[in-house]
Amino acid sequence: MAKKRGKNAFYAQSGGVTAVINATACGVIETARKHKKKIPKVLAGRNGIIGALTEDLIDTSKESAKSIRALRYTPGGAFGSARYKLKGLQENRAAYERLIEVFKAHDIGYFFYNGGGDSQDTSHKVSQIGEKLGYPIVCIGIPKTVDNDLPVTDNCPGFGSVAKYIATSIREAGFDVASMAKTSTKVFVLEVMGRHAGWIAAAGGLAAEAPSDAPHIILFPEITFDEEKFLAKVDGTVKKYGYCAIVVSEGVRNKDGKFLAEAGTRDAFGHTQLGGVAPAIAELVKAKLGYKHHWAVADYLQRSARHIAAKTDVEQAYALGKSAVQLALKGENAVMPTIVRTSNKPYKWKIGVAKLSDVANVEKKMPADFISKDGFGITRKCRNYLKPLIKGEDYPTFKDGLPQYVKLKNVAVKKKLKKQYKI
Amino acid sequence: MAKKRGKNAFYAQSGGVTAVINATACGVIETARKHKKKIPKVLAGRNGIIGALTEDLIDTSKESAKSIRALRYTPGGAFGSARYKLKGLQENRAAYERLIEVFKAHDIGYFFYNGGGDSQDTSHKVSQIGEKLGYPIVCIGIPKTVDNDLPVTDNCPGFGSVAKYIATSIREAGFDVASMAKTSTKVFVLEVMGRHAGWIAAAGGLAAEAPSDAPHIILFPEITFDEEKFLAKVDGTVKKYGYCAIVVSEGVRNKDGKFLAEAGTRDAFGHTQLGGVAPAIAELVKAKLGYKHHWAVADYLQRSARHIAAKTDVEQAYALGKSAVQLALKGENAVMPTIVRTSNKPYKWKIGVAKLSDVANVEKKMPADFISKDGFGITRKCRNYLKPLIKGEDYPTFKDGLPQYVKLKNVAVKKKLKKQYKI
Repeated sequence: MAKKRGKNAFYAQSGGVTAVINATACGVIETARKHKKKIPKVLAGRNGIIGALTEDLIDTSKESAKSIRALRYTPGGAFGSARYKLKGLQENRAAYERLIEVFKAHDIGYFFYNGGGDSQDTSHKVSQIGEKLGYPIVCIGIPKTVDNDLPVTDNCPGFGSVAKYIATSIREAGFDVASMAKTSTKVFVLEVMGRHAGWIAAAGGLAAEAPSDAPHIILFPEITFDEEKFLAKVDGTVKKYGYCAIVVSEGVRNKDGKFLAEAGTRDAFGHTQLGGVAPAIAELVKAKLGYKHHWAVADYLQRSARHIAAKTDVEQAYALGKSAVQLALKGENAVMPTIVRTSNKPYKWKIGVAKLSDVANVEKKMPADFISKDGFGITRKCRNYLKPLIKGEDYPTFKDGLPQYVKLKNVAVKKKLKKQYKI
Repeated sequence: MAKKRGKNAFYAQSGGVTAVINATACGVIETARKHKKKIPKVLAGRNGIIGALTEDLIDTSKESAKSIRALRYTPGGAFGSARYKLKGLQENRAAYERLIEVFKAHDIGYFFYNGGGDSQDTSHKVSQIGEKLGYPIVCIGIPKTVDNDLPVTDNCPGFGSVAKYIATSIREAGFDVASMAKTSTKVFVLEVMGRHAGWIAAAGGLAAEAPSDAPHIILFPEITFDEEKFLAKVDGTVKKYGYCAIVVSEGVRNKDGKFLAEAGTRDAFGHTQLGGVAPAIAELVKAKLGYKHHWAVADYLQRSARHIAAKTDVEQAYALGKSAVQLALKGENAVMPTIVRTSNKPYKWKIGVAKLSDVANVEKKMPADFISKDGFGITRKCRNYLKPLIKGEDYPTFKDGLPQYVKLKNVAVKKKLKKQYKI
């Protein structure tokens, strides 16, 4: 890479978006803009890696400093994200060769890939094209996932804000149900995301400061659903406190290993698409215990709720984007900046570095000692881990009662290649 | 009523609670505390009117000024609410005689009843016991309902905050879906409350400032669901904008008059309990158009979301509680304070007064000219009506990342009657 001339950077968002992935984009672009000699332009992939493959690149230099700044407060993925997994170099050499063609055509020397586990696997594969296909590129993964299931890093940006949303929501709904329980709803079920790991469900537990507080029961994907034990706990809770508030992870399975509610469809990564465990649980309670119920499914609301994002989360998301650029400029390659917790009380963190080879395709499960003995709650250790991650508020600007989010111009870079690429 | 000695007041919360009904309680109690000679104590009904019938009264004078102040920021019903409808005087004379016994025993001369349509019917009935059963009582209804369906008043406290929550949520989810649509979710469905009137669904429309913005489609209970027309609109929207965000009211019915999703249970007022129209709509889209979908059901989250309550709503809720006490002290009876809109630009409002006889059992529907011609959106007139109601933020205090809400001591008043009353 000709250091004197500088190279453009490619940045893409991948997988499910979050309330703060754009804060990371903001960190990447603002930091790169401070080093224009080394990185003249950040070109974003329209719809993630698909933008690179199809030469559909967005010229972020066309956006004002104000618009880029506003990304810090805007949920969703400003350039479009994609659920698209690159196969290995052996199996799909054509895709990697195409990437190199596009990178060459647009003078791209840096590859920043912002995503979760599957995406870091892609980052890792792309990082190998230098060695294996002879195209030198600096490849940096940037963590993002509401599931909080990436290894090495203490936590993942996106998670803290979902955690804050879920804990706030179940606390608020708990106040509601408690007041209605005498003559109406006695059991409330809130379904939250978390396919394999119960991090988000666990976060609901932060709302309870005493055993009488909502949520009274958390159902984790890590714990096999035991109908009898669950119903006994619901009944006991209603008899003791007058009502029962439940947080259930979409990934809860029965003893046969089947999801309690399976939509029967699969996403582009081949994962089963889940949804609807809350009504299933609520119906079970109604049928077996006869209690009047209500249920909510937060779905995308939880991961897009920028209006109640955690300040810690926003700051870390931004810092990771900034660090990714700094690492690249330092000549690091095939790495991912991480969050390192240096102190718990008071909470302190710094940026660390992980090798992509240590991150790709490794899923961080919740430690067993984060779940209480009866399997329905979180331990003090879990609480201590989670608590700082939801700290602080970082409200967006409101106008006429609504949060103001930016829509970028997303001006396309002129295509230089004649050949088209079919996705 | 012996004016010199003063009389205690009874205050009760009725029906579904809201993010701001406690702000009304705060207004009632703080105002009464300024007139201790006339109203020595405010006794709250534990679980609404049931507290009066069972002589289960809460002595609010045991609560500190700080706790009462904190009610302004606390969702749910601090004293417990009830879905319990009193039959007419003829049909259920015993209940009214019991009320009089309890009122007499606790020296109650004021009756403040905070609720929606059914509840104002109860207020109206209670207001007649002075004339018909010879017990003089000043009876003031105080409006509250997220459904915004009370007549006379320009709007109902509780609605503005739900409206703000729904508009914010669909805007945020819209940003999320827009970024995922290329390879993943193309259709998102958010189910909102509103049994018979589409006020809450309409509020979702505030999020869209352009036709390309979410939500693209609103399904109102006022408009018979037309499957073919709906699917054509979804398909057209996905083809034009890449994705389609839908807000659907729980009360949407098909041409046979049946709710699209019926839980099959009934609440204490005999209303069918609804829920689950979002998954039904989503499945329809999937089956007929093949688009990948996600859906959310906001349920209680929407009406308890104090963290994003509208400042206008909180102020009006408080003012109505305050005015109720002032009206009572002025000797008004069988009335309900209302919100009167005196100007739209800039938005100005004042407190008015309605007769309970004009309010009881009258349901305010959305005007036909609030819904756009195609039946899937809101008109400018609707927007102008709704816009000021969601204005302003009034955040609760946060600690350790979570909103701080008050739990009152709710000390019971010593029972004076030997006879028990069975509910």
